[in-house]
Amino acid sequence: MMNSPSSGNSPCRAGTDPFPDHYIQIEQRVRYSETDQMGVAHNKVYLEWFELGRTEFCRSRGIPYGDIEKRGIYLVVAESFCRYKKPLRYDDLFFIRTAVRTISGKKTVFVYELKTKDGKTLIAEGYTVHVAVDKRGAVISLPADILAKIATPLIA
Amino acid sequence: MMNSPSSGNSPCRAGTDPFPDHYIQIEQRVRYSETDQMGVAHNKVYLEWFELGRTEFCRSRGIPYGDIEKRGIYLVVAESFCRYKKPLRYDDLFFIRTAVRTISGKKTVFVYELKTKDGKTLIAEGYTVHVAVDKRGAVISLPADILAKIATPLIA
Amino acid sequence: MMNSPSSGNSPCRAGTDPFPDHYIQIEQRVRYSETDQMGVAHNKVYLEWFELGRTEFCRSRGIPYGDIEKRGIYLVVAESFCRYKKPLRYDDLFFIRTAVRTISGKKTVFVYELKTKDGKTLIAEGYTVHVAVDKRGAVISLPADILAKIATPLIA
Amino acid sequence: MMNSPSSGNSPCRAGTDPFPDHYIQIEQRVRYSETDQMGVAHNKVYLEWFELGRTEFCRSRGIPYGDIEKRGIYLVVAESFCRYKKPLRYDDLFFIRTAVRTISGKKTVFVYELKTKDGKTLIAEGYTVHVAVDKRGAVISLPADILAKIATPLIA
Repeated sequence: MMNSPSSGNSPCRAGTDPFPDHYIQIEQRVRYSETDQMGVAHNKVYLEWFELGRTEFCRSRGIPYGDIEKRGIYLVVAESFCRYKKPLRYDDLFFIRTAVRTISGKKTVFVYELKTKDGKTLIAEGYTVHVAVDKRGAVISLPADILAKIATPLIA
Repeated sequence: MMNSPSSGNSPCRAGTDPFPDHYIQIEQRVRYSETDQMGVAHNKVYLEWFELGRTEFCRSRGIPYGDIEKRGIYLVVAESFCRYKKPLRYDDLFFIRTAVRTISGKKTVFVYELKTKDGKTLIAEGYTVHVAVDKRGAVISLPADILAKIATPLIA
Repeated sequence: MMNSPSSGNSPCRAGTDPFPDHYIQIEQRVRYSETDQMGVAHNKVYLEWFELGRTEFCRSRGIPYGDIEKRGIYLVVAESFCRYKKPLRYDDLFFIRTAVRTISGKKTVFVYELKTKDGKTLIAEGYTVHVAVDKRGAVISLPADILAKIATPLIA
Repeated sequence: MMNSPSSGNSPCRAGTDPFPDHYIQIEQRVRYSETDQMGVAHNKVYLEWFELGRTEFCRSRGIPYGDIEKRGIYLVVAESFCRYKKPLRYDDLFFIRTAVRTISGKKTVFVYELKTKDGKTLIAEGYTVHVAVDKRGAVISLPADILAKIATPLIA
């Protein structure tokens, strides 16, 4: 059964939870190849942008994601959610904000916001839920040192 | 604020709702270009597969999606959700099941299941929420004839 | 230096060479996600379609590409070329024809034609050049049994 | 017939032509979603990177590509070629160099080089041939002001 993604211990923010303070922000521009015949960025591309956000988030915490995989640990995506609020068009510049909502050895929830360059308008928001697996795909507990790094707020 | 996707009138199925009876099913095969370095289909591709399901669902109801756009109506994606249960690998054959969970002039919710070929194992499940907009992006009410066609259970 | 792709021993067909007789043909439909804001299939997608053609070509010869990789052999793309003649739009059905132009232990050249469903209009044509490498990326000679299978004309 | 791409007036560089002096260079990083199960960037992605190069090339000449389309002119891709020399892996940083090889009202040829960050190693090289079309897809002559801007060497 597909339980509602936010029932019980919601992986997503609850009704009035603000976006976490300890986010990292990167700038992106919409590629021509990312548009569709509606003239806007296709819905699937947002999941790629979330992934770019995760990559830079992990790097900012001193644990580049590539290094995690080199240790035989894979943070597979167990769930993805995106709410599309405003369209993005070819060549638009925008910000991707990425933060960790919750993390444990068993599950990590990243949350994302796409904002216009002035930071005022929310373009999209979403989350991804991750579990750690080994090379054979068996679920494992995230090693303590990786967990600590991802969980540590960035000291700017 | 990002309200939980399933609070109140859940766009997703509630805790024990079964997948709708009136689904259409198509077969797909994982492309090499759809894999990533984990050796499995990348999470973004599932949104493309959901879209393939919608395309065939609309066609099966006698209202090809291209015909909807030719009338100046666009069913934009307002939300997407996917739960990834089992990995898919290059060249794997699988089924995509697509159904309408709820539909009104204002909002249409498609639900999806990806299943193994024997129909026994759930690979992934998810939903997309759509609103109708006109050429300028203004939200409109879905015309009654289109609504009726999409809402009509398929008579096989 | 980038030598011209067709000088000397052209990997592509020479001026008046016909498309090889022993091609395999598959049918495809343009996905919505494959269109761009011009309203046509994006140029990069043709390389995915060529790849689908190769997958089915190898399967038709009794040597599924996945089996080749399971033996630790990878047919990496060393060159790709595509000439785009007619646009493809969302939901268009078309044929992909795939054949082998030349093959040796060192190099395999696949050629492709995209045709309208009546077989009369050429949509696009191109080729890809492949070399075999092992798991570490070192160039190897294609094993004789694989070479023989790919080189054998299909007996329909 | 598919004539050889470089016969006669080669759209590609001839045997010993150097890469044009008046290129622009941008930095990119390989996205996780751009890798495939070989663990390297998929061959189709290079066409997206070439496109990013064109976008920044046009901007550097004072004629953003989006402005060209706003005038109802589309620079469609008539041919693409890529030679893949060295693999790119997840998170690799590299340079994309873009230049115009030839330009006339009828045809524009962009050439590309992907280089490692030290500028010493060629990762890939290629070209794309473009013709200008109007909104209905009819071939037109590129307006003189656009042609002049794209043809003008960048004064750094």
